[in-house]
Amino acid sequence: MTQVLPLAVALGEPTGIGPEIVAKAWEERNTAGLLPFCAMGDMRAIKNVWNGPLQCVDTLSGAVDVFAHALPVLHIDSAGDIRPGHPTLEGARCALNSLEMAVGLTRSGAASAVVTCPISKKWLYQIGFTHPGQTEFVAERCGIAANNAVMMLAGPTLRVVPITTHIPLKDVPDAISPELIMSKVRVTTKALKRDFGIESPRLVMAGLNPHAGECGALGLEEAEIVAPVIAQLRAEGIDITGPHPADALFHARMRAGYDAAICLYHDQALIPLKTLHFDEGVNMTLGLPIIRTSPDHGTAFDIAGKDMAHPGAMIAALKLAERAAQTRALAIDA
Amino acid sequence: MTQVLPLAVALGEPTGIGPEIVAKAWEERNTAGLLPFCAMGDMRAIKNVWNGPLQCVDTLSGAVDVFAHALPVLHIDSAGDIRPGHPTLEGARCALNSLEMAVGLTRSGAASAVVTCPISKKWLYQIGFTHPGQTEFVAERCGIAANNAVMMLAGPTLRVVPITTHIPLKDVPDAISPELIMSKVRVTTKALKRDFGIESPRLVMAGLNPHAGECGALGLEEAEIVAPVIAQLRAEGIDITGPHPADALFHARMRAGYDAAICLYHDQALIPLKTLHFDEGVNMTLGLPIIRTSPDHGTAFDIAGKDMAHPGAMIAALKLAERAAQTRALAIDA
Repeated sequence: MTQVLPLAVALGEPTGIGPEIVAKAWEERNTAGLLPFCAMGDMRAIKNVWNGPLQCVDTLSGAVDVFAHALPVLHIDSAGDIRPGHPTLEGARCALNSLEMAVGLTRSGAASAVVTCPISKKWLYQIGFTHPGQTEFVAERCGIAANNAVMMLAGPTLRVVPITTHIPLKDVPDAISPELIMSKVRVTTKALKRDFGIESPRLVMAGLNPHAGECGALGLEEAEIVAPVIAQLRAEGIDITGPHPADALFHARMRAGYDAAICLYHDQALIPLKTLHFDEGVNMTLGLPIIRTSPDHGTAFDIAGKDMAHPGAMIAALKLAERAAQTRALAIDA
Repeated sequence: MTQVLPLAVALGEPTGIGPEIVAKAWEERNTAGLLPFCAMGDMRAIKNVWNGPLQCVDTLSGAVDVFAHALPVLHIDSAGDIRPGHPTLEGARCALNSLEMAVGLTRSGAASAVVTCPISKKWLYQIGFTHPGQTEFVAERCGIAANNAVMMLAGPTLRVVPITTHIPLKDVPDAISPELIMSKVRVTTKALKRDFGIESPRLVMAGLNPHAGECGALGLEEAEIVAPVIAQLRAEGIDITGPHPADALFHARMRAGYDAAICLYHDQALIPLKTLHFDEGVNMTLGLPIIRTSPDHGTAFDIAGKDMAHPGAMIAALKLAERAAQTRALAIDA
């Protein structure tokens, strides 16, 4: 029997919807069957938007006992006022501190996984944050090159991995190098085994062009880049097929036949995921020594403090992190 | 009361699944509530794959009476053998003749609309067909420039219009000119009124880049091309919003708020449509003097003649054509 470790939940931007969805997730801990987690951030951010029971804790082990009757919080003091929907430099510093603490405690073995609430990139950049986003920051803290940290988006019936992410569409054709695709597919395959417990992961890969290039008539990237990469990955023993026409890859019958779809650009992956699972999408970083998940939405400043935020994606992120932690623990026990 | 005119159904490639799905649609005429239609093509193509009652007719008006007890066919003799899954040059000629006849009869006022079964472009090109596809051929026969014939894909809960269609992804950024977008949006708006009976059509438009460019950080096409075009179209009185992040545009709550989504490239439109409505997608050509719909799938040579083809998309194409014809007729009567 493995010891029960709580999840470390970074509250992220204190004036966004993070504090509200964490509190609402705690309210649903019994109906959703959630394991103990501990919030890290400024307690005032939660008090501002929630009347439920909060309890300050000093250690993560203390959080496990508290969790049944109150939301445990490792308090991080933010210097300024906290007004929902009104971000500040002090709030951004607090968001970064909460991420740093959650990652550090998980790296040290005190938490089973990191779940991160949304941050505001714009405000983080203003306090000197130099990473493109939280994913790259977490990867660096774990000693992993950013290219080997793979973003997976997961919903109840679909997992997608975009090979390129936040770049203009016109830059995508030049960015999809064989090395990048192979590296990300290998990481994905390992993570499906290690974190999802899938013994023989089945992958599909989308083409870049309409009809996957239609034998070269509608583009050459499939023949020149994607098909040779798939052949090499298959030779390594990875069960991956394609390149498939992207538009035929995501209906129910097709989805039943694979464990993850490798996509070449942001919207090719995110359109089907959010079309099907808009309120339940989880962003998971694969390829790290620790487990990290996140609800797949932003700070939503426009609805912060209005009791309108839905905790569905946060609950899904917590459950996915729990399951991955249990899967890893079982493998160690075995 | 408008006279009941039958729909003209072009059987398309005789060795594909067209004949089978037309016969199966006729079988469901009562349960699906279909109005009379008349198939045009070689009767042998249907006999090969179906044992139901067929009746040769000489005129479309004759087809209306026949329809209740047999599938009416305007026979077009194909010179060679017809073996499902084995296309020939003679079959391609027959497919082109069936399309020509269906368009001609509808142009003449003898049919209420054209519904086209899949053709094989590869085989049509071999008999000297110079149009990219059936859509452009139909447009030319109607005296409409190909750029003003707009492809709409429609399913039960989503209609999408791709501004560019069958071109490589890398050519998309240069192809999305303001003129092209404006022309296609205007045609779409008119068609939603004329063919769908929507008095005040509400349109949304997707951006090209991730997060619709994120204020220029992830691409400039939104600011330089899409936003000014939307402003101009709104000034003309067209109810269109955007550019929206494409991945947030197709979930159920969002879909409830618009009548059609304008997309910038093939897969941006086709991924959500086929993810949601793979077996019911209808391709409709907007901007023509006649109504033309088509099931949104191909010849499926691999399953032709095996009794495996599903008539869902054909039935949806027939019903959409019926409704458009009724909507136009009501407007004339009024």
